[in-house]
Amino acid sequence: MEALLKQILEDCRRYTEQGAVATYIPELAKADKSDFGICIVNEKNECFAAGDFEKPFTMQSIIKPMILLMALMDNGGEAVRRLVGVEATGKPFDSFNYSDLALIGEHINPMINTGAIALCTLIKGESYNERFNRLLALTRELSGNPLLQVDEQVYLSEKRTGNKNRALAYMLRAYGLISDDVEEVLECYFRACSIGVSTVDLARIGSVFAHGGVDRATGKRHFEREYARYVNAILMTCGMYDGSGEFALTVGVPAKSGVGGGVMASVPGRMGIGIYSPALDKKGNSIAGIKALERLSKELDLSIF
Amino acid sequence: MEALLKQILEDCRRYTEQGAVATYIPELAKADKSDFGICIVNEKNECFAAGDFEKPFTMQSIIKPMILLMALMDNGGEAVRRLVGVEATGKPFDSFNYSDLALIGEHINPMINTGAIALCTLIKGESYNERFNRLLALTRELSGNPLLQVDEQVYLSEKRTGNKNRALAYMLRAYGLISDDVEEVLECYFRACSIGVSTVDLARIGSVFAHGGVDRATGKRHFEREYARYVNAILMTCGMYDGSGEFALTVGVPAKSGVGGGVMASVPGRMGIGIYSPALDKKGNSIAGIKALERLSKELDLSIF
Amino acid sequence: MEALLKQILEDCRRYTEQGAVATYIPELAKADKSDFGICIVNEKNECFAAGDFEKPFTMQSIIKPMILLMALMDNGGEAVRRLVGVEATGKPFDSFNYSDLALIGEHINPMINTGAIALCTLIKGESYNERFNRLLALTRELSGNPLLQVDEQVYLSEKRTGNKNRALAYMLRAYGLISDDVEEVLECYFRACSIGVSTVDLARIGSVFAHGGVDRATGKRHFEREYARYVNAILMTCGMYDGSGEFALTVGVPAKSGVGGGVMASVPGRMGIGIYSPALDKKGNSIAGIKALERLSKELDLSIF
Amino acid sequence: MEALLKQILEDCRRYTEQGAVATYIPELAKADKSDFGICIVNEKNECFAAGDFEKPFTMQSIIKPMILLMALMDNGGEAVRRLVGVEATGKPFDSFNYSDLALIGEHINPMINTGAIALCTLIKGESYNERFNRLLALTRELSGNPLLQVDEQVYLSEKRTGNKNRALAYMLRAYGLISDDVEEVLECYFRACSIGVSTVDLARIGSVFAHGGVDRATGKRHFEREYARYVNAILMTCGMYDGSGEFALTVGVPAKSGVGGGVMASVPGRMGIGIYSPALDKKGNSIAGIKALERLSKELDLSIF
Repeated sequence: MEALLKQILEDCRRYTEQGAVATYIPELAKADKSDFGICIVNEKNECFAAGDFEKPFTMQSIIKPMILLMALMDNGGEAVRRLVGVEATGKPFDSFNYSDLALIGEHINPMINTGAIALCTLIKGESYNERFNRLLALTRELSGNPLLQVDEQVYLSEKRTGNKNRALAYMLRAYGLISDDVEEVLECYFRACSIGVSTVDLARIGSVFAHGGVDRATGKRHFEREYARYVNAILMTCGMYDGSGEFALTVGVPAKSGVGGGVMASVPGRMGIGIYSPALDKKGNSIAGIKALERLSKELDLSIF
Repeated sequence: MEALLKQILEDCRRYTEQGAVATYIPELAKADKSDFGICIVNEKNECFAAGDFEKPFTMQSIIKPMILLMALMDNGGEAVRRLVGVEATGKPFDSFNYSDLALIGEHINPMINTGAIALCTLIKGESYNERFNRLLALTRELSGNPLLQVDEQVYLSEKRTGNKNRALAYMLRAYGLISDDVEEVLECYFRACSIGVSTVDLARIGSVFAHGGVDRATGKRHFEREYARYVNAILMTCGMYDGSGEFALTVGVPAKSGVGGGVMASVPGRMGIGIYSPALDKKGNSIAGIKALERLSKELDLSIF
Repeated sequence: MEALLKQILEDCRRYTEQGAVATYIPELAKADKSDFGICIVNEKNECFAAGDFEKPFTMQSIIKPMILLMALMDNGGEAVRRLVGVEATGKPFDSFNYSDLALIGEHINPMINTGAIALCTLIKGESYNERFNRLLALTRELSGNPLLQVDEQVYLSEKRTGNKNRALAYMLRAYGLISDDVEEVLECYFRACSIGVSTVDLARIGSVFAHGGVDRATGKRHFEREYARYVNAILMTCGMYDGSGEFALTVGVPAKSGVGGGVMASVPGRMGIGIYSPALDKKGNSIAGIKALERLSKELDLSIF
Repeated sequence: MEALLKQILEDCRRYTEQGAVATYIPELAKADKSDFGICIVNEKNECFAAGDFEKPFTMQSIIKPMILLMALMDNGGEAVRRLVGVEATGKPFDSFNYSDLALIGEHINPMINTGAIALCTLIKGESYNERFNRLLALTRELSGNPLLQVDEQVYLSEKRTGNKNRALAYMLRAYGLISDDVEEVLECYFRACSIGVSTVDLARIGSVFAHGGVDRATGKRHFEREYARYVNAILMTCGMYDGSGEFALTVGVPAKSGVGGGVMASVPGRMGIGIYSPALDKKGNSIAGIKALERLSKELDLSIF
């Protein structure tokens, strides 16, 4: 298996030169385009990896399924569904393009910024600090890595330049979807996006989603099966920004990308996958990461369709 | 199994009273809201059915995966992909809401009217009559029902009132996505939408998609596995109009609905399902049909997530 | 005055080299970018002209105020207002960008294609041939030129390539704003757009609008003062496509442009102006024509603000 | 003249019962629907008034032409034009409905919130306090009323509930149209909207715009004629929110409404008008105010078309 992973990285390496690293968060612009790593954790909890699999990067949008999961665990599916819809929007992840009448929860989803920001308010906690800490704790637990922490440089960079997210959050508040202090909610969101991980962490988290909430190493159930399905279903339809349809076709598994260059995939019943290559296409997805996933999907017949 | 199907119909029967039958095609308005039938064809090619499973209705949008399949078989995936995109649009199936700049194939998909109309031009044939006949022949073949034919009343009704589709088709032509005579292309499309089927036919077609293009009765491969995945993937992300996200969550299998009240589902590796109940929700999906599928999915653990 | 007009043409001649002639109607692409003419008809019915003032070109969108006027004369202001709104749309003149809910008459106006096409159905007549002939007769009457006629080459070119207008017209019909045969309505519209005029004709028509419906030569009232105001008001807010705001600022008089390169202006109480230069900016307005109008407005203090 | 004004108020009084006072700023909800006043200041600087002409209310959007004027006086027309466009948007005044690509200054205008907020950054001053004070001073000067001041209750109410404007301002900042601190810019904007005036103040300000920047009482030129035209032209095309087209038709003069219930009109060469009646239509315009202006326009033949 490791030989296969190595081969795939080698064959797809030329794609790492395409696209560009994210620059709208200045700190992300420092990423090295040549970094390329992959890790898979299978149903026997075996872990295989290749390339820069231990290289740290920030989760960015990959935290969105974790925010959704925590909101589900804290409130149940109905409450989450009432606040935030589940349909694809046909628009970029940070779009302002709402008509006034249509701006209701029904027209956002947990994988776009407005949806994820709104769901932060459903995480339980006395303060937004506590809410964030609970989210971090859950992420550490699913990844099995108690050392996960916020990359302070990225967090500060994100906070300093996050005016578009501020605009989106004030819009949510203006329309009554959130009622908490916008800067506090965003503090939680920006810190969550800035959690540093490696492909190994993503593969482990993906593996828990792939096995219905159960950690195959310990047999422990972290959350209910229906929540895994909720998350996987939304990853399938909306996880890869406005490239989700293409990804369903060519790879065919639930996955979530982040502008930090990572992708986490969950292959139901089989494995979790983490991948990292920071150069992005125009939709915000890792180019080489997707190519490697396409190849892996073909080799191991991963598509669920 | 038949007992289960009967039980499900019984339990969901009250939903048949909600919503309304489609009226924008006058002929469809004659449907009987109390009709309710279901059929499944499993991996052993066993067929189970209950209720009004033999009641005929027209395919309407359920022909879209067949048009896509035929276009794939006639031209291969790349040519199809070049003409029509694969992303969810976040808009109703017959939306005019294109900004001028964005009206390129990339922003439509095979499950909305513009995409399906455009794909009719990729079906091979000397005339649009021949193209339609080849599409009908393929539909007969996959359903194993050589008697399938156009419901002339519905077809004429559709043709007479199809001005929105005319508008969409002229728009496609104005933007150079199609170059054939609009009325001829629409003739093919309207006739295709008007093919009469029963839930048994849909279950058999769904079963072929579920088994990668192979008819489990005869072992015959009708089309390549990758085309089944192409179709299934798009059904998952866009098959239930702008209710596809919700359906992925609650049912979790590729499916296509039509405003005639039918739903065809394909459960990869397991079964095809046909369902019929003509009262629709505002998005154009059969209300009782979806409820029955939710129930069936839970009972048989059908979700692929 | 003629010296001034000559001077203005000379000073603005360099602008005739910018932009490009319309090409979407193939016949219009044959226009000569170096043609440049102007004519004004003042309150004493004196006519002054310079440059290629007698050069013929087709009215194109400049027929829209005539269609609106005829609809007003045939039905009164209320009936016109009920069918077609009066607000600027913020979109190009041939935009498809309607959200489904919003596609009601209120969101179109008489100066965009959908509005003008819809208003053709309000012109009285047994047939669309008669309706067109009545419109032509009125145009001849206001211009004082009984020789005005359709440029058959442009008409045929327009008819052959007018798929976008077909799409718009079928959309109007799908939404119930028009109920007549689309091709017949468009026949009338395409012929109307193809009426050949010179700047002298436009100046004379503009003069009638400028003087509240009265022909200053004969003292004859062609139509009611309130209709002149209806037309002038809409020309001010929507007459120059989506460049109307800029034009109000820099020129400050009601005016209508056409993609044939003409502009007709009506300076209330003072004069009518016709101008011709076929190279257009991206919004569809004559570049040199607007520059000459800006200059003329400054020299003669024409702005009504 | 005063008899005419009284008659008009009497005849239009029944319209004060239609519509509703603005409630999105809680303090505005306290307005008395039965208040109805009018004032005109003509070219001889004579002042005529009737009804509740001295009743105070806040300017709200009527401050927008003042912000535009100050930006013009401080920077000239070109700099203003570079930052903020002049075309009607076809959308409500506080719309979020920007597509990402289109969100450039060209697609906003000085009469919608985003445009006015952006123009606040062009007012010169060491601090936003100084900028606001200069704007207040100019407003006092044009109205000839040195006692004008901020209504603190409305200002605080506006600041507390102004999340939509916060969202718009952060969006402007995210797209680089403004670079100052959002809360400081909004502080200036909210205070400006909360300046209390009466119809007399509005009529006097309108009169200065009507006479090209000259105060007819003193003969003093407050600003250049071209700035009066800039403002009047934009008031004509965009001054009455998305009811500007209708207003051009029925009243035919440049005017600006505010959700406080006031309307200021400028009749070029003739008079300024102030009117007050707090019940609004759905577009945010004073219902009885517009009816009274329609009547006045007919009686005095005010339409510039």
